[in-house]
Amino acid sequence: MKRTNASKIYNLVGAEAVLTEASDLRRYLTGFSTSFGYVLSDKNGTFFYTDTRYLEGAKKALSGTDISVKQFESPLGNLLKDYKEIAIPVGRTLYDDYEKLKNSGLKIIDSLPAFTSAMSVKEDYELDCIKRACQIADAAYLELLGHIKEGQTENEVAALLEYFMRKHGASGTSFDTIVAFGENSSVPHHETGMRKLKCGDIILIDFGCKFEGYCSDCTRTFLFGDDGEHSEFKNAYSKVLEAHMLVKEKITDGITGREADAIARNYLESCGLSQFFTHSLGHGIGINVHEFPNLSPKSEHKIVNGMVFSDEPGVYLEGDYGIRIEDTVTLIDGKIVSLTDTDKKLTVI
Amino acid sequence: MKRTNASKIYNLVGAEAVLTEASDLRRYLTGFSTSFGYVLSDKNGTFFYTDTRYLEGAKKALSGTDISVKQFESPLGNLLKDYKEIAIPVGRTLYDDYEKLKNSGLKIIDSLPAFTSAMSVKEDYELDCIKRACQIADAAYLELLGHIKEGQTENEVAALLEYFMRKHGASGTSFDTIVAFGENSSVPHHETGMRKLKCGDIILIDFGCKFEGYCSDCTRTFLFGDDGEHSEFKNAYSKVLEAHMLVKEKITDGITGREADAIARNYLESCGLSQFFTHSLGHGIGINVHEFPNLSPKSEHKIVNGMVFSDEPGVYLEGDYGIRIEDTVTLIDGKIVSLTDTDKKLTVI
Repeated sequence: MKRTNASKIYNLVGAEAVLTEASDLRRYLTGFSTSFGYVLSDKNGTFFYTDTRYLEGAKKALSGTDISVKQFESPLGNLLKDYKEIAIPVGRTLYDDYEKLKNSGLKIIDSLPAFTSAMSVKEDYELDCIKRACQIADAAYLELLGHIKEGQTENEVAALLEYFMRKHGASGTSFDTIVAFGENSSVPHHETGMRKLKCGDIILIDFGCKFEGYCSDCTRTFLFGDDGEHSEFKNAYSKVLEAHMLVKEKITDGITGREADAIARNYLESCGLSQFFTHSLGHGIGINVHEFPNLSPKSEHKIVNGMVFSDEPGVYLEGDYGIRIEDTVTLIDGKIVSLTDTDKKLTVI
Repeated sequence: MKRTNASKIYNLVGAEAVLTEASDLRRYLTGFSTSFGYVLSDKNGTFFYTDTRYLEGAKKALSGTDISVKQFESPLGNLLKDYKEIAIPVGRTLYDDYEKLKNSGLKIIDSLPAFTSAMSVKEDYELDCIKRACQIADAAYLELLGHIKEGQTENEVAALLEYFMRKHGASGTSFDTIVAFGENSSVPHHETGMRKLKCGDIILIDFGCKFEGYCSDCTRTFLFGDDGEHSEFKNAYSKVLEAHMLVKEKITDGITGREADAIARNYLESCGLSQFFTHSLGHGIGINVHEFPNLSPKSEHKIVNGMVFSDEPGVYLEGDYGIRIEDTVTLIDGKIVSLTDTDKKLTVI
């Protein structure tokens, strides 16, 4: 019988019963995605309660595991009436739901610290899924490069890339693909639109896909033809790339998110560019494309072996141009290994 | 100066200040999508606070509206220190956030009823966006039909459909496209996978796209070649289609979600099929693909003119076949108008 993460979390939390409703946390516990359900673990085992839309699929997917699937019948209180205490992820729980549990006399314990720590350090099979998502994204990006043409809209390029990711085996995207042409690249989270590509444009693409529920995240910035007017951009690009590589070289097991962020930020400061580096260096990646740990100026999160996160310094000159160079990376034996791995040398297509 | 929904909600709620953090509600207020931000309305107007990733884009998108964009500086409490009361969507607020506001001495008022009622009845421009999303989905579906081939995986067909929706002008999908071949169609929310298409297979496709932030939702069930072994399926298909059409004929202004659901459920009961109709008849559609009102056996929500929702009866015979026929519809002058509109007569391709 395959032991799922449900038993791992139950043991970590140490409460009489552990109840989980948030869909990403349920996905982590069960390996199965639904828009509705409850996972409940106690000393008798783990039960996944869902509705008729998912019942047949869940039974198939979870046969042979330590999770039993049952049809949910409201109210939730009926499932909990024999317990004195219940663990829920408090910081992810809606006020109304918390109050209902509290008012029913249950002692409430917070399960979120257990989830955060367990989910941030990946098991081998989780790392395999992320690696596969990264390989798919890399292959799709390389295929895309041969299909970018003058006059295409940002939207068309995003559509093509998402199609190639699906075609190479992704089950979907990690987030709506960002494609920014020319001056639009200076908006870090640009809303992909109808701007048409012309010769000499900068292209910034931030994209990711999912494999078996796990995400990849990657950004590349390059030129569509070189009209000879990009010397400032090219200089800044080389500095951002140096910052990106310095992070990969210097991160070690046990440093904080703040220290990791400072590797890039201090380097860009020495180049006179840190005022244009307007976001954090990176974020954890797993079932969610943004999760623990944060690599940011105020983060005291510890980066340790087995974590997967982004290394994504960027600079943005409002109304002019933007550059972001991002890989999904993991830390193994104190060294960074890049999971997305297409060329980062400034490309002109 | 263009008045946004922010002033509408502020006036409906009637509190000293209205604070909104949930991303879909913020999208409704501002017409602009971000993963982080706060919208705050008081007697002086509306302010959208976000971080540097979105600042430039938000300023561009909201220029000429009654919303001013500002950079968010934590802690949130600084923005609220001059108020005695604050309205938040309580049922959508996390326990921790609610407690913080309450402990700072603010009287808390619930803004969610105002959002629910305002968002469920669409303004003309909102209806136009949904219509456009439905037209795009229809065009993409028709284009897809010419590209389905034996041996393709469910995943490939989903990839093609999503590409066609993007190509026709969608900004993304409403949800991960469901493509189910053969026996997989009996799982109402099947996880699209690697099952290959063969002659005689049932194909069930549940798909939707977004235009200007508004969703479409549509399901079609059809046959890939007719191997002459589908008489039970064909009979059930005609009954589900009759139930679907009866709903369109009989829904009028003022009936409840329960009464609407019963139109389809009672008809399928008269055909001996109601035990296989294992989900609700429908749900509201707008910025979210599932929103108010519910059309389900227990729903007392009133269906009124201007609402947009799905009409989606279905039957599922475990391990054998499933049928769902879904349109996005709206109610105008007490009559249903279908917004997705491709042929529902049983198609064999």
